[in-house]
Amino acid sequence: MRYFLYFAYDGTNYHGWQIQPNAITVQQCLEEAMQTLLRQPTPVTGAGRTDTGVNARVMVAHFDTDTALPEPATFADRLNRLLPPDIAVYRCVPVTSEAHARFDATSRTYKYYIIDHKSPFAERYAWRYRGTLDFEAMNTAAEKLYSYIDFTSFSKLHTDVKTNNCRITHARWEKEGEGYTFTITADRFLRNMVRAIVGTLIEVGRHKITVDDFCAIIEGKNRGLAGTSMPGKALFLHDVSYPEDIFNV
Amino acid sequence: MRYFLYFAYDGTNYHGWQIQPNAITVQQCLEEAMQTLLRQPTPVTGAGRTDTGVNARVMVAHFDTDTALPEPATFADRLNRLLPPDIAVYRCVPVTSEAHARFDATSRTYKYYIIDHKSPFAERYAWRYRGTLDFEAMNTAAEKLYSYIDFTSFSKLHTDVKTNNCRITHARWEKEGEGYTFTITADRFLRNMVRAIVGTLIEVGRHKITVDDFCAIIEGKNRGLAGTSMPGKALFLHDVSYPEDIFNV
Repeated sequence: MRYFLYFAYDGTNYHGWQIQPNAITVQQCLEEAMQTLLRQPTPVTGAGRTDTGVNARVMVAHFDTDTALPEPATFADRLNRLLPPDIAVYRCVPVTSEAHARFDATSRTYKYYIIDHKSPFAERYAWRYRGTLDFEAMNTAAEKLYSYIDFTSFSKLHTDVKTNNCRITHARWEKEGEGYTFTITADRFLRNMVRAIVGTLIEVGRHKITVDDFCAIIEGKNRGLAGTSMPGKALFLHDVSYPEDIFNV
Repeated sequence: MRYFLYFAYDGTNYHGWQIQPNAITVQQCLEEAMQTLLRQPTPVTGAGRTDTGVNARVMVAHFDTDTALPEPATFADRLNRLLPPDIAVYRCVPVTSEAHARFDATSRTYKYYIIDHKSPFAERYAWRYRGTLDFEAMNTAAEKLYSYIDFTSFSKLHTDVKTNNCRITHARWEKEGEGYTFTITADRFLRNMVRAIVGTLIEVGRHKITVDDFCAIIEGKNRGLAGTSMPGKALFLHDVSYPEDIFNV
């Protein structure tokens, strides 16, 4: 039996999602709690990986069990009691046996939060900029993302993916709460991509580069051309979408 | 010259507002930053004290200078650069020489946040309850607060105040964000009062006591009768009001 787990985490105290030696990761915490509950090693496969310090409002992972869980909702509750306060499971739902949290995801949405003033409460999850940003120019540049598919310029070097092609379907800055939020949706994202895009858009907002320069950076297909990667604490994996039929069990 | 300072703080890492030996407090951090900027010891007098772990979205304090600050707004910015990230000054405004942050405050508003589910992001500033609470009964009880003035039952013992009389003008639970928020406004509050009121209202919400019991607790004027004091992390000093004329400088 295969299940999807929907959960959230505050990435502050984790070296990202993916299990790695000598560092605490979210995947490791989750697998340890699963092993305690199911009494056997139970690998979980995430919808993607998040880097150190990056948060997830919604992350999805799949796992398999030998026998059906009597009550998936209760299982989520029991898992929550074992997990630390900064990881919370929302739902556990049965899916078809071939459903895959990573390969079946049709879109992912990330949000990046920035504020323009000191704020004790927002600053844990937002990046503070000094001065003013031209959000109109940043949105003009963001719209250009829809016209491209190869985002090599915004990808970490030497990753193991076969293609750097992504279809970005939404990319926009909006005033929200105490500051501005950048929301970006695509079928897939390359490693480091959102933070590199945000860093480059901020250069547009500071009038260090023009919208045309922004396009030239994408067309250059060279990571060295783009802006710096932004801090992880202000980045949230916000949602992951799947086709309905994988839930028809 | 006298000034009012408006600021916010995350109380997580502080032993409350008021200076005390062998513990870091918000007042101490603020006075240290003031001394650095003004090059002389500069006491600040707060609108009230908050206890260990309690947060302030708006706190007000007054201080005096020998000569007028050339630019109060710039002074606030410079103060912010000296203060840690969990204390943020919003405004510095001149007031009349007799204006007093504590004695002139006409009302204070506190908020208490509770949630009914595990949440990595909300839980830093909210108290989580398990089970269900009868918010209708809690609001019926909260309305009774308007009929009383002596709140000895909700006050910490052995405090140095002359009277336990307060005029509560607003007290209500409302659904907000991920959970419920209790908003309470009064001319003044006794030490520990909001957290004791919330703890007792939660006993009403759990049907451990009735609304009549709640009234009897107030009428008993005995702290031993009321519910337990709730954790500080979910309590926010939300606002402090002053008469307009103290700003006519």
